[in-house]
Amino acid sequence: MTYCVAIKVNSGVVFCSDSRTSAGVDHVSSYSKMHSFNLPGDRQISLLSSGNLATTQAVLAKIEKDIKSSAKVNLHNVTSLRDAASYVGELSSNEQSKHSSDEANYESTFIIGGQVANNPHKILLIYPQGNYISTSDDTPFLQIGESKYGKPILDRVLTPETTLSTATSAALVSMDSTMKSNLTVGPPIEINIYKAGSLATPLYKKFEEGSEYLRELKNSWDQRILEAFNKLPPIEWANQWDQSPDEQNSIS
Amino acid sequence: MTYCVAIKVNSGVVFCSDSRTSAGVDHVSSYSKMHSFNLPGDRQISLLSSGNLATTQAVLAKIEKDIKSSAKVNLHNVTSLRDAASYVGELSSNEQSKHSSDEANYESTFIIGGQVANNPHKILLIYPQGNYISTSDDTPFLQIGESKYGKPILDRVLTPETTLSTATSAALVSMDSTMKSNLTVGPPIEINIYKAGSLATPLYKKFEEGSEYLRELKNSWDQRILEAFNKLPPIEWANQWDQSPDEQNSIS
Repeated sequence: MTYCVAIKVNSGVVFCSDSRTSAGVDHVSSYSKMHSFNLPGDRQISLLSSGNLATTQAVLAKIEKDIKSSAKVNLHNVTSLRDAASYVGELSSNEQSKHSSDEANYESTFIIGGQVANNPHKILLIYPQGNYISTSDDTPFLQIGESKYGKPILDRVLTPETTLSTATSAALVSMDSTMKSNLTVGPPIEINIYKAGSLATPLYKKFEEGSEYLRELKNSWDQRILEAFNKLPPIEWANQWDQSPDEQNSIS
Repeated sequence: MTYCVAIKVNSGVVFCSDSRTSAGVDHVSSYSKMHSFNLPGDRQISLLSSGNLATTQAVLAKIEKDIKSSAKVNLHNVTSLRDAASYVGELSSNEQSKHSSDEANYESTFIIGGQVANNPHKILLIYPQGNYISTSDDTPFLQIGESKYGKPILDRVLTPETTLSTATSAALVSMDSTMKSNLTVGPPIEINIYKAGSLATPLYKKFEEGSEYLRELKNSWDQRILEAFNKLPPIEWANQWDQSPDEQNSIS
């Protein structure tokens, strides 16, 4: 399984991805799901991938080949991120259609984002069918893969005004929640922070398994959540039993 | 869709359920998914249901009929919660097998719990196939229905030592997270708190749509989460861009 999230706030875009790939529990590997196609000063395009690994790798190989051969349409000459999404969507659905006769699942889903020239920065989710959607002010993020565990925290925290560092924390906590609840999502965790308007190479960090920072973040968040719990409005009607003196004698 | 959660801590059991039922988005109704079969002083049994509403209602009708007719096995004479789970599982799989010839999904899943006589208090999840599982110290809760959104908070907060009132807060925050992320889960929210060893009728509360308490809980939690975020270890490498003076001029 996979979990990737991209967040678009006014000041830029944050991408975050795990690296666990599995074809059954006894075939677990680690592959990066974050790829960049940058031309500093002109464009910063990042791509996150989930789904069938063969499809994903075929699409990436074709993207790189098209850039190298200066194909008529490639990620270094498209004039907008929507054009980039159309192009990747077409590569992906073409690749899947090679296998349409059998019943296995060859689908891949992508998130593409960044900024091309002076167009606004943007993120887009590309469905296996090749069509795609963008974000809204109410939902300034996109997720692919195992997305449900990590969604509530994003729903609560993110607005277009969120700073890039808070958006980064939100992405990492969302990733941590997903890893805690689902073993098929795991490190290394990659993060990529692009500042809107800069057209400069994004800030990139990779956290390996056992990363000191990830552990500190996790412990800190666990503790904050417990503190937050203790500050919730008291449930007086439920409290009564906690306070009864014979509680310690209850059957356990 | 449905979301129900039951939590078993040393001092008792908390049950929590939503009430939204849908067969497509234009056929949304409200049905209670929480049912009790109590004999004060002898047993306290609560049942949560998810899945096909016709199957659920048929199972409930049969449970009530068996109690009324003092059938050989019924929820008022079983001698343990495991026997109760076997009985409900059999009713459920029998009901589903009536429709096994067509392709629609008639499956239902249940959580049963409480306490029978002097046996330890317990909760069990009954699969559509009629088999069932209990909790462990590491995972002192069971969920049915749309369970992923509300799982991370339970994973972080609950241990067997958690008090009944904290477990109740956890159940309500888990429910709130699910409702925020999935429109097919909704109020009224019912909650039922059983104190271990008491064999007394559980504390029951029902929160209607627009409940003052639910709103207060939600607002408080939203605020606590933001506070918790602000106290996370600073991401210095991500901070640099937030602090740059020209941030407000970025493309948005």
